[in-house]
Amino acid sequence: MASSQSIQRIALTPGEPAGIGPDLCIQLAQQYLPCEIIAIASPELLEQRAQQLGLPLRLKEFDNSLQPSIQPSGTLTVLPVELAEPAQPGQLNSANSRYVLKTITKATKGCMDGVFEAMVTAPIHKGIINDAGFAFSGHTEYIAGITGGHPVMMLATPGLRVALVTIHLPLSEVSQAITHTRLRAVIRILDNDLRSRFHIDNPKILVCGLNPHAGEGGHLGKEEIEVIEPVLEAFRNQGLNLQGPLPADTLFTSKYLASADAVLAMYHDQGLPVLKHIGFGQAVNITLGLPIIRTSVDHGTALDLAGTGKAETGSLQYAIQTALAMASGKSQ
Amino acid sequence: MASSQSIQRIALTPGEPAGIGPDLCIQLAQQYLPCEIIAIASPELLEQRAQQLGLPLRLKEFDNSLQPSIQPSGTLTVLPVELAEPAQPGQLNSANSRYVLKTITKATKGCMDGVFEAMVTAPIHKGIINDAGFAFSGHTEYIAGITGGHPVMMLATPGLRVALVTIHLPLSEVSQAITHTRLRAVIRILDNDLRSRFHIDNPKILVCGLNPHAGEGGHLGKEEIEVIEPVLEAFRNQGLNLQGPLPADTLFTSKYLASADAVLAMYHDQGLPVLKHIGFGQAVNITLGLPIIRTSVDHGTALDLAGTGKAETGSLQYAIQTALAMASGKSQ
Repeated sequence: MASSQSIQRIALTPGEPAGIGPDLCIQLAQQYLPCEIIAIASPELLEQRAQQLGLPLRLKEFDNSLQPSIQPSGTLTVLPVELAEPAQPGQLNSANSRYVLKTITKATKGCMDGVFEAMVTAPIHKGIINDAGFAFSGHTEYIAGITGGHPVMMLATPGLRVALVTIHLPLSEVSQAITHTRLRAVIRILDNDLRSRFHIDNPKILVCGLNPHAGEGGHLGKEEIEVIEPVLEAFRNQGLNLQGPLPADTLFTSKYLASADAVLAMYHDQGLPVLKHIGFGQAVNITLGLPIIRTSVDHGTALDLAGTGKAETGSLQYAIQTALAMASGKSQ
Repeated sequence: MASSQSIQRIALTPGEPAGIGPDLCIQLAQQYLPCEIIAIASPELLEQRAQQLGLPLRLKEFDNSLQPSIQPSGTLTVLPVELAEPAQPGQLNSANSRYVLKTITKATKGCMDGVFEAMVTAPIHKGIINDAGFAFSGHTEYIAGITGGHPVMMLATPGLRVALVTIHLPLSEVSQAITHTRLRAVIRILDNDLRSRFHIDNPKILVCGLNPHAGEGGHLGKEEIEVIEPVLEAFRNQGLNLQGPLPADTLFTSKYLASADAVLAMYHDQGLPVLKHIGFGQAVNITLGLPIIRTSVDHGTALDLAGTGKAETGSLQYAIQTALAMASGKSQ
């Protein structure tokens, strides 16, 4: 691991080549960044997209034997991976899905090997990867398949962190997925990573109920009584600072949030609407529970904006800042 | 109906006598209000609570043969209903549940008879009413049982209105409750009442999907494809201005909300966390789909605050303002 004085190396995967990921990398290269960004991508794709955007881009091939260095504006270090076919903005091509997966694999392995301090991912397109014949359930799951660990999704924006117990499940399957085992695993990881990655002593976590009004004493569902309360109680007895289960529609008010380090929501649309309402354009997706540091943008491929220069770099910048802070041991 | 120049009469039910409802009515009576408020309550309860709060209160018995008049500060018109037993702040007593229901019944019937232009309700305690042996599923359902109609819950705060397709259901029952019939009924009422009660021409309604990412093309649930999209399409063909189904975590961002008159969420914790995050202390619960105008506070009985003077009147004031605006034909 690099010392806190040294320049950090962050692997950046531009994701789907027909989306805004390559644009964001090039736009980002125009700015000052206090680290070395290594884009794991096709150099031809980046050069072609830079030309379409009318932005200067000088590529420098990554050399692990050199010391990390901060790049001058308009410059990007690149670890080359070849596309199967040239990429057109906005046009998905399943021939390039293997390329997308290869960039993620290289970034992940580089983090495992200590070549990079962290990896930051731009958006991919799950559908086209599946169309190409890969059994691919998601970016996060794919990375965890290489690193091991139990991934927990947490989104953060200044002033609010929201982690999820279940993520991309149909709503009808959420209730049965809230098991003692899953909830225990997620809370343990969240508490642990807030301490180790974010350097928060005794983090205070607010836990949502599953049902409206957190079940209203069992009148609106039993999962709070049968699953959530016993799990929280057992962790409290171990000294964890957990409050809940609380009704989601009162928990997300300033009275509660002011004193909390993170919120744990039971499912996707319980926790993320408030976070994205507050933080759209400046939110980051952080994968906890892995042996490496990985952050991601909070948005999709925006195929219609690729090559137009209209993509916003806010979320990618925040994802890099967060990865740097986590890697350097500063709380973010 | 009163003309727009005349003074409006609003029935106010203080709800659970051991909660903060009576406090809020007394605190409100200290303020200038451009209408006549008729508290439907026990005069002894109000006088006793006013004494506990150290606030002046002069009660005037309601007389329907008199012209409506604006009350001087510290005065409240009251339509007396007797308590079964004296109420103590913070101490629920099932002996008084019949009293609570009677106040709601009188307010509702008064609205049906044209005595009042609208009714505004302070919080009740569902559990104690059930303990008293009444089969009571909720304030709104009870009122609709008297008036007829199909109640639809909408919460509003300045800048955002959120209506719900399902309300107080365990999460595990939500998916099966999203039927064509229910969704059609709710959308028709929402569109109709935004026009007739809020005087919005061709209201634009943003509709959430049920599943994360609005089902992601069927990968994360089929309800969008099988139920929500066909219902929206049929209404669009009738000229309704509906957008969706949209992912709930992108819909609640300013880009979408800026152009919307209301959001339709599929369930409680999908729609209300953002609304209460934005509007806590200034949010109102509006029952659409009834032949009368009814608004309510957005909070509970707060038994621990009753009699302390610490209850906040913000939501009740906003509920009265909204009822007045709806009754006078002004958009709110």
